[in-house]
Amino acid sequence: MIKFIENEPFSPVQYMYEVEKVLFKGKSPYQEIIVFESPDFGRILVLDNIVQLTEKDEFFYHEMLTHVAMHVHPNPKRVVVIGGGDGGTVREVLKHDTVEKVYLAELDKKVIEVSKEYLPFVACAFDDPRLEIHITDGSEFIKEAKDIDVIIVDSTDAIGVARSLYAEEFFRHVKKALKGDGLFATHSESLCFHKDVTIEIQETLKKVFPIVDLYSIPIATYPGNWWSFSIASIKYNPRKPQRPPVKGLRLYDAEVHTWSFLPKSLYERIMNKTLHW
Amino acid sequence: MIKFIENEPFSPVQYMYEVEKVLFKGKSPYQEIIVFESPDFGRILVLDNIVQLTEKDEFFYHEMLTHVAMHVHPNPKRVVVIGGGDGGTVREVLKHDTVEKVYLAELDKKVIEVSKEYLPFVACAFDDPRLEIHITDGSEFIKEAKDIDVIIVDSTDAIGVARSLYAEEFFRHVKKALKGDGLFATHSESLCFHKDVTIEIQETLKKVFPIVDLYSIPIATYPGNWWSFSIASIKYNPRKPQRPPVKGLRLYDAEVHTWSFLPKSLYERIMNKTLHW
Repeated sequence: MIKFIENEPFSPVQYMYEVEKVLFKGKSPYQEIIVFESPDFGRILVLDNIVQLTEKDEFFYHEMLTHVAMHVHPNPKRVVVIGGGDGGTVREVLKHDTVEKVYLAELDKKVIEVSKEYLPFVACAFDDPRLEIHITDGSEFIKEAKDIDVIIVDSTDAIGVARSLYAEEFFRHVKKALKGDGLFATHSESLCFHKDVTIEIQETLKKVFPIVDLYSIPIATYPGNWWSFSIASIKYNPRKPQRPPVKGLRLYDAEVHTWSFLPKSLYERIMNKTLHW
Repeated sequence: MIKFIENEPFSPVQYMYEVEKVLFKGKSPYQEIIVFESPDFGRILVLDNIVQLTEKDEFFYHEMLTHVAMHVHPNPKRVVVIGGGDGGTVREVLKHDTVEKVYLAELDKKVIEVSKEYLPFVACAFDDPRLEIHITDGSEFIKEAKDIDVIIVDSTDAIGVARSLYAEEFFRHVKKALKGDGLFATHSESLCFHKDVTIEIQETLKKVFPIVDLYSIPIATYPGNWWSFSIASIKYNPRKPQRPPVKGLRLYDAEVHTWSFLPKSLYERIMNKTLHW
């Protein structure tokens, strides 16, 4: 059987998947896009040779990226998603009945088109009337946004082309776009393989937001696997969900919310680099 | 650079490591043993083409396998380690000053010899006078053991040759060998890739022990990564450490102990297979 060898330039382990069938292979102005069928993970989306999601376990990533911030906000109405052209994050956001408007700012139109055709399990909420899609650079889009309750970055790797979405300047625009009790969430790489990046993202967020925290979940199909998410808040404690879980979730619930945050001793040792490996 | 492609027959993802230098390659009567130097993980021990430990992150596995049970016991004096010929688990057990005697039952003498020569970072406690090494099948050794406080299985994969160490009969001998307040810990595979095995181990343990629980930690160099450990207890609550952490630990502490146990809602959903993926 053909193999797909992931070429994640920052990972010390390369992952190899079996390929049953390549469903799509093409180039957009921004990246190479591949969708293949795998015997073990269902359909897999690959951008520039890096696995973005698999049908089997994408809910781990999308639920945890989305629902922690969304449940800490007591009444999220206006939400911005930056990146996430596959639709998985938007699908999760729209499970909240409180939501009146979601702006999706995706740079690469082709990712949306390919996802609609080949990844219907994530690209299933694009017709929701509450959704407004903008094909644009999220770091530009955010400069014009305002009165937002929750902003979520669902980008490719923080150390690659998406670097501008992790810069202090971007975080300042995020804060300006948020209401006075808004929340921001972004993935922040692997605590096993890239914890220096995680630490840097946390430190940069702390320059801008009064409350910054870190949570994590193991994701088997992202190199390093101990996947971290950074959350920044202006008012609410990110460790405390304010509402019961919305319907239709598989992994996230209130207990998983609490558990996903690192114990304080561990967080401190990672941040001050006394736990180093 | 040469690559080492792991051949874990039960893993849907194959892991590929860079090899700087092969330090040892040979066969024992039981398995093929390789030690190589990797640019990212230091020295790596491979048995039958499956990575057993890397110098960089072995402490995740060895500390969590050992110290949860050891800290739940208020005064562990007599300990049995089955498998673990590399010495990492014995190294951790001997950090407890309460310990008077450790029996190591390892089937393959060659693993101990190779580890002493090439993996001194784990094989560093073999000269401790409290240690007694038995080159024998652990499932036989346990039949003769008695008055033990803590028994730890540090085997190769539960689905491979070490199957007998996960059988109900073995668990019955473990319980018989333990004192009336003893504890048993074993690794129980990946919650991402092999949760059916994890569930089976939990269910088998429950036939024998009154208290059975599950804890986990992400380990980047074991396929599936969300690595689970099963703990069985006759008297003490496994979620509650009874003593402050011993000295010389990197990852384990009382907060990590508590955190490593799954939230009950998640444990229940995994066990009754309503969280399935």
